Amino acid sequence: MAEGFQKSTDIDGLFDRLMQVRQATLELVAPLSDADATAQSMEDASPAKWHLAHTSWFFEEFLIAPAFGDEARFDPFYAYLFNSYYDAVGDRHARPKRGLLTRPSLDEVLAYRGHVDKQLTSLFDQILPDTSLIELGIAHEEQHQELFLTDLLHLFAQNPLKPAFQPASPQQTAMTAPLSWQRFDGGRVTIGHSSEAFAFDCETPAHDVLVEPFELASRAVTNGEWQAFIADGGYTQPGYWLSDGWACCQREAWSAPLYWEKGEDGVWHTMTLHGPMPIDPDAPVCHVSFYEADAYASWAEARLPTEAEWESVARGLPIDGHVRTSGHLTPQRQTGDGLIGLYGDVWEWTASAFRPYPRFKASGGAVGEYNGKFMSGQMVLRGGSCVTPPGHLRATYRNFFHPEKRWQFSGLRLARDI
Amino acid sequence: MAEGFQKSTDIDGLFDRLMQVRQATLELVAPLSDADATAQSMEDASPAKWHLAHTSWFFEEFLIAPAFGDEARFDPFYAYLFNSYYDAVGDRHARPKRGLLTRPSLDEVLAYRGHVDKQLTSLFDQILPDTSLIELGIAHEEQHQELFLTDLLHLFAQNPLKPAFQPASPQQTAMTAPLSWQRFDGGRVTIGHSSEAFAFDCETPAHDVLVEPFELASRAVTNGEWQAFIADGGYTQPGYWLSDGWACCQREAWSAPLYWEKGEDGVWHTMTLHGPMPIDPDAPVCHVSFYEADAYASWAEARLPTEAEWESVARGLPIDGHVRTSGHLTPQRQTGDGLIGLYGDVWEWTASAFRPYPRFKASGGAVGEYNGKFMSGQMVLRGGSCVTPPGHLRATYRNFFHPEKRWQFSGLRLARDI
Amino acid sequence: MAEGFQKSTDIDGLFDRLMQVRQATLELVAPLSDADATAQSMEDASPAKWHLAHTSWFFEEFLIAPAFGDEARFDPFYAYLFNSYYDAVGDRHARPKRGLLTRPSLDEVLAYRGHVDKQLTSLFDQILPDTSLIELGIAHEEQHQELFLTDLLHLFAQNPLKPAFQPASPQQTAMTAPLSWQRFDGGRVTIGHSSEAFAFDCETPAHDVLVEPFELASRAVTNGEWQAFIADGGYTQPGYWLSDGWACCQREAWSAPLYWEKGEDGVWHTMTLHGPMPIDPDAPVCHVSFYEADAYASWAEARLPTEAEWESVARGLPIDGHVRTSGHLTPQRQTGDGLIGLYGDVWEWTASAFRPYPRFKASGGAVGEYNGKFMSGQMVLRGGSCVTPPGHLRATYRNFFHPEKRWQFSGLRLARDI
Amino acid sequence: MAEGFQKSTDIDGLFDRLMQVRQATLELVAPLSDADATAQSMEDASPAKWHLAHTSWFFEEFLIAPAFGDEARFDPFYAYLFNSYYDAVGDRHARPKRGLLTRPSLDEVLAYRGHVDKQLTSLFDQILPDTSLIELGIAHEEQHQELFLTDLLHLFAQNPLKPAFQPASPQQTAMTAPLSWQRFDGGRVTIGHSSEAFAFDCETPAHDVLVEPFELASRAVTNGEWQAFIADGGYTQPGYWLSDGWACCQREAWSAPLYWEKGEDGVWHTMTLHGPMPIDPDAPVCHVSFYEADAYASWAEARLPTEAEWESVARGLPIDGHVRTSGHLTPQRQTGDGLIGLYGDVWEWTASAFRPYPRFKASGGAVGEYNGKFMSGQMVLRGGSCVTPPGHLRATYRNFFHPEKRWQFSGLRLARDI
Repeated sequence: MAEGFQKSTDIDGLFDRLMQVRQATLELVAPLSDADATAQSMEDASPAKWHLAHTSWFFEEFLIAPAFGDEARFDPFYAYLFNSYYDAVGDRHARPKRGLLTRPSLDEVLAYRGHVDKQLTSLFDQILPDTSLIELGIAHEEQHQELFLTDLLHLFAQNPLKPAFQPASPQQTAMTAPLSWQRFDGGRVTIGHSSEAFAFDCETPAHDVLVEPFELASRAVTNGEWQAFIADGGYTQPGYWLSDGWACCQREAWSAPLYWEKGEDGVWHTMTLHGPMPIDPDAPVCHVSFYEADAYASWAEARLPTEAEWESVARGLPIDGHVRTSGHLTPQRQTGDGLIGLYGDVWEWTASAFRPYPRFKASGGAVGEYNGKFMSGQMVLRGGSCVTPPGHLRATYRNFFHPEKRWQFSGLRLARDI
Repeated sequence: MAEGFQKSTDIDGLFDRLMQVRQATLELVAPLSDADATAQSMEDASPAKWHLAHTSWFFEEFLIAPAFGDEARFDPFYAYLFNSYYDAVGDRHARPKRGLLTRPSLDEVLAYRGHVDKQLTSLFDQILPDTSLIELGIAHEEQHQELFLTDLLHLFAQNPLKPAFQPASPQQTAMTAPLSWQRFDGGRVTIGHSSEAFAFDCETPAHDVLVEPFELASRAVTNGEWQAFIADGGYTQPGYWLSDGWACCQREAWSAPLYWEKGEDGVWHTMTLHGPMPIDPDAPVCHVSFYEADAYASWAEARLPTEAEWESVARGLPIDGHVRTSGHLTPQRQTGDGLIGLYGDVWEWTASAFRPYPRFKASGGAVGEYNGKFMSGQMVLRGGSCVTPPGHLRATYRNFFHPEKRWQFSGLRLARDI
Repeated sequence: MAEGFQKSTDIDGLFDRLMQVRQATLELVAPLSDADATAQSMEDASPAKWHLAHTSWFFEEFLIAPAFGDEARFDPFYAYLFNSYYDAVGDRHARPKRGLLTRPSLDEVLAYRGHVDKQLTSLFDQILPDTSLIELGIAHEEQHQELFLTDLLHLFAQNPLKPAFQPASPQQTAMTAPLSWQRFDGGRVTIGHSSEAFAFDCETPAHDVLVEPFELASRAVTNGEWQAFIADGGYTQPGYWLSDGWACCQREAWSAPLYWEKGEDGVWHTMTLHGPMPIDPDAPVCHVSFYEADAYASWAEARLPTEAEWESVARGLPIDGHVRTSGHLTPQRQTGDGLIGLYGDVWEWTASAFRPYPRFKASGGAVGEYNGKFMSGQMVLRGGSCVTPPGHLRATYRNFFHPEKRWQFSGLRLARDI
Repeated sequence: MAEGFQKSTDIDGLFDRLMQVRQATLELVAPLSDADATAQSMEDASPAKWHLAHTSWFFEEFLIAPAFGDEARFDPFYAYLFNSYYDAVGDRHARPKRGLLTRPSLDEVLAYRGHVDKQLTSLFDQILPDTSLIELGIAHEEQHQELFLTDLLHLFAQNPLKPAFQPASPQQTAMTAPLSWQRFDGGRVTIGHSSEAFAFDCETPAHDVLVEPFELASRAVTNGEWQAFIADGGYTQPGYWLSDGWACCQREAWSAPLYWEKGEDGVWHTMTLHGPMPIDPDAPVCHVSFYEADAYASWAEARLPTEAEWESVARGLPIDGHVRTSGHLTPQRQTGDGLIGLYGDVWEWTASAFRPYPRFKASGGAVGEYNGKFMSGQMVLRGGSCVTPPGHLRATYRNFFHPEKRWQFSGLRLARDI
């Protein structure tokens, strides 16, 4: 460290967190071959290698190059290859062709990561970096850790060999909690982020919303409940569906959640990061679209909660008591009392379109393209899933996807009017 | 009239209104040939003949057949041909193939209308009809009057001969009002429909919303202002655009509003129901998508109003003073003071996704498919346009279209935070 | 007639034939409404009105305007609207949008025809017209008479009302001839056109070809035989099919010839110009693609004849004895001895790709675009169908369509090696 | 070797050739990473790993499993993964998803190859294998060696890093031969394969064809000549093009051969297996479609030769004197006298559609799917290219591709009528 330079312990703590997150990404890639890390299974997904490189590019583009100049870049061409969607920082490689980048190799990309980590260390040693950009880079990398697993599952599901990313954990035996309805009074509630801690721009500003009294289900909808929906004609009755949803259901020939397959023995299986597994009727349903979630709610004579309802409930609760993640890579049975599985099993589709909060202002500069420009055509999901890094969760978090997407770890929790 | 039967004067008034609306539809078709009335210019649009038949089918299906039995139907096959999207009442003819129905002819469809009108008269004579369904039928027919003109303009615009639906009116000479900003305090405002008068289910229930202080532009954005947006690179700078909007802009190669064409003399013309006309820089811009409207607002360092903002302003004002429609079929220059052109020039895109109001319940039965099932992926428009029947306008009215659609008479009005 | 000008009787005969053909086109349109004449059922088909106008434009463009100047044109814009594919004579209206031309009306197009007929009369009176262009114009118009009926059948087949173009003729009672094989020695045979009579450029030059001994079926494949093919898995066994054909069969979900529908009573019906009719098992199968014809031949352990084989047989025979057309608009049962139905029931797919004959030279000028530029990707059909004008048939005639097309009156006759 | 078993020296020679070809495939893969070998750049192309596995599967499916039973298979699932198009031997993995098979890895596929080679050795030791199937397997593997390089070039061309498969060879300095026309009398010529040596079924039977006198260009069209075609509006004048070709040219926005790019300095470069290289104006043009070749010939007032013309010339010549291949992976300048470059620089598009020869019979069984079912919609190419294994060339060889394909090493040689 440069002589006479005083860095606060906060900075040290930030650096440690940064390096932990960078290291966690590396651990994800360990079981993968060069080919596994290169292939792209569909336009929505990205190769593992791309996630590795893009998260490094983020630090290089927004912190290292501004501080140390373009000569500090590992390879000037990487900015073209690994920019994702930041129009403000130049052209980029076409998204659907990411899977054709057999070069640079996984080893070269890992070398790129090492180079960036070294530069980040220098940055902390020599210059007080913009801590908000570091925080954003950490959050960005955590998001891509989740996408890494999500996209990898999709890739492996396309392979008739159905490879496993990790060996399966032992079977669960705990009993799932019975569904109960929790009553909330609503009223004038505050949602949105206001503390000093990190949050994405789309979570701000905090503001008040009027919420009517409502009830929220104590746990997420399960696979067993979803099978009842299927058996009762859920996928064949247009009356349960939004019009665009029904068109999508027919066009894509949906008859069950993504990855579900009925074996010759009539038993449903699903593809997981542990390879193919029989459906656990007591675990939360996963890999359903907003359209399916909405149709289910309609069938169940309930509805999805709004994001204000969800957040107003979540804010009153300690996150820790509600995080379900424990190293599993599949949603776990939700056992216990009260509101359970609110974080860490499946992302829960809400009834809310992803639109700006009142007085929302996107961040300045290129990082301002992070969220604001996606505020059309997408629905908000809340909570977090079994593949979300636990430290990444919070009550104000707004995840968002188009309503027909199913490859995320997305499920639902019911709400209803009183 | 059936002996001893007492009908209120309300019923008489309702019958008169019904017949006036039915007659108004007939007047629209007068200038059209059988071929004009049959062709379908794109999947989003319907043939004029189809609008004529479908609005009659609505009364036959929901009022006449239930009252008089299926034998009262003009032709049992018409239910298949002219049902639009009501899954609950059976199969229907594929939407994109409506333009291939050269039979039944326009004359036969007009005979169908005559038959339905006669049956409706019998219905009022013999049975107290469900007045809410009659009101819905009137509103439904008014909506199709607007769509009739909207779709016809699109059809004629595809024809290199650029036919006119009606002769052009004399040129305007009035001065457009300069843009000013009107300040509103917001607070807890009530929106949504609550009176006894007719409204669509999606306008209910009335409920309170918190609105922050804001400013609303005194008039709609004009063609001249839009030309400045074009000249300043509005269609070539991704930074102004939502991500989905920019993708759409590039895919569709947008460089101006729909129907605009630059002549060899460098002058912009547009296609109208009066045939091709030079752009009037002082008239409201029309035939822009939500994506374009949002990009314009971004370029102008403003934003679109939310529907709660718009309605909170509109509720405080008498409609009459704000209706611009006077038999014109193109948006007119907005002259005067205060908030002008709020109704009757162009539908104004809002910042709000079309989602259900709190405690919304769709109407029961097949007419419940009217609005609720479209509550995803669409944006709300407010106000009304030069082709909206004037009696159809109200402050709570929620029109909605997908954000990429441009063939409606859609424009915008700016808002901004204080 | 210009003074002192001597026209041969040939010219008079040509004029009479021209006017008969022009008149025959008018008779086709008599049963149609303006809307019937305007609609376009798919990109491959054209509206009836377009056929009427385009055949007139041909004379205006290639004979009248060159002789009398552009001021003799009915409407200068029609050249843009009704040019089909002649790149050499300028831009043209996009083919898929022909059905949106509700204007000019049918009446206006008929007036256009009248104008062109009058100009043609003047042309013959005043100037010795280029008789080869007149012959080409006649042949061109005859081709469009066939397409008029072919396209109209396709349009009416899309209409759930299944309208009839003409009332059905009385049922046939004659016995179909049993299939026999006719043996031919082949050898060095001459094919192609060489006489003074009119032929299309693609039929020239006459040239010699070596043909091995072969057998040709005495009649076309029947509906009954085709039903046996269906029953034996013809549409579900890839082994019978060409690779591109099988892909097409699956993509389009073919399971029977175009227009065939199995009623609830299990009986096959087909759509005809007389409206829906039960399948006659003894009539030639019609509306099959080359891919289906080839798969059928493979199933039947035979093959399609080459065009040289077909023509070498046909040249030795008088056409009259083989023309089946007698005012019917559906293929008729083939009764009698020897080779029957060689002309006038169904176009017979051959095994030959449509490629230029040795030393082929396209005609000069714009009419040179008539055939030569289509010499890729298409297969030759021989014979002529029940909707081909009888005078239009000859042994050297090469019709051609892409191998997946089914809306033509196309069937097949088997051949086999000895 | 089984006692008392006598194998002819032919069998030994066959075994040696087989092992040489198997080894040559392995040498191709040496410079590739696991990822390089896995990616699929488009539906037409296959991953290198797939070529390696599929050519092994061929021997396993058609020789090893029939001889030693299914238990001799390396992995029973590979038959599903690596069958290409043989419908007769069961289902197969969807072609467009070949690039998603990150497992089995390249190492596993190489182990598969080793296993198959061992089994093939046993087969020769223990059983007299079907030598015609071995010959077919050798020819099949040679074809895939060519496709391996062709597909790899396409993959690397998609990568902005433009990697080289092999280092570039030193620059050529030899002078290209000037174009001259060689005259041939034609007449009754024999084409097709008739000797005992191996040939594909589509090359049989030998038969006589009448050929008119013609002239053939002494060498292939060069890049420099192609630049003149471009400069003269070759890609913008529809008059030179077949109708389907022009549609394709516009749809795909062709303005030069595949892989050509004009640098900022105005100099044309092309992508090669040695990485990007400046265009050599004296080398044969490569990577053009049939449509482009035909348009060029039309522009040059010549035509493409028929396959009968080409073969009648080639049969009279020793192959050796005409093979240009010498370890180069790009087409070489054609220097010398007489007919040059007839084999081994570029595949030459002919004027002939790929259709069966008279009396053609496909091979029996699954290998009968090899050629016959592709006999529609494709054009014949003759000669062989710089990436064709030299021993694979012969005068009767019929290569075939759809007329719009450009990723093969395809060029052209002109012919003309006398």
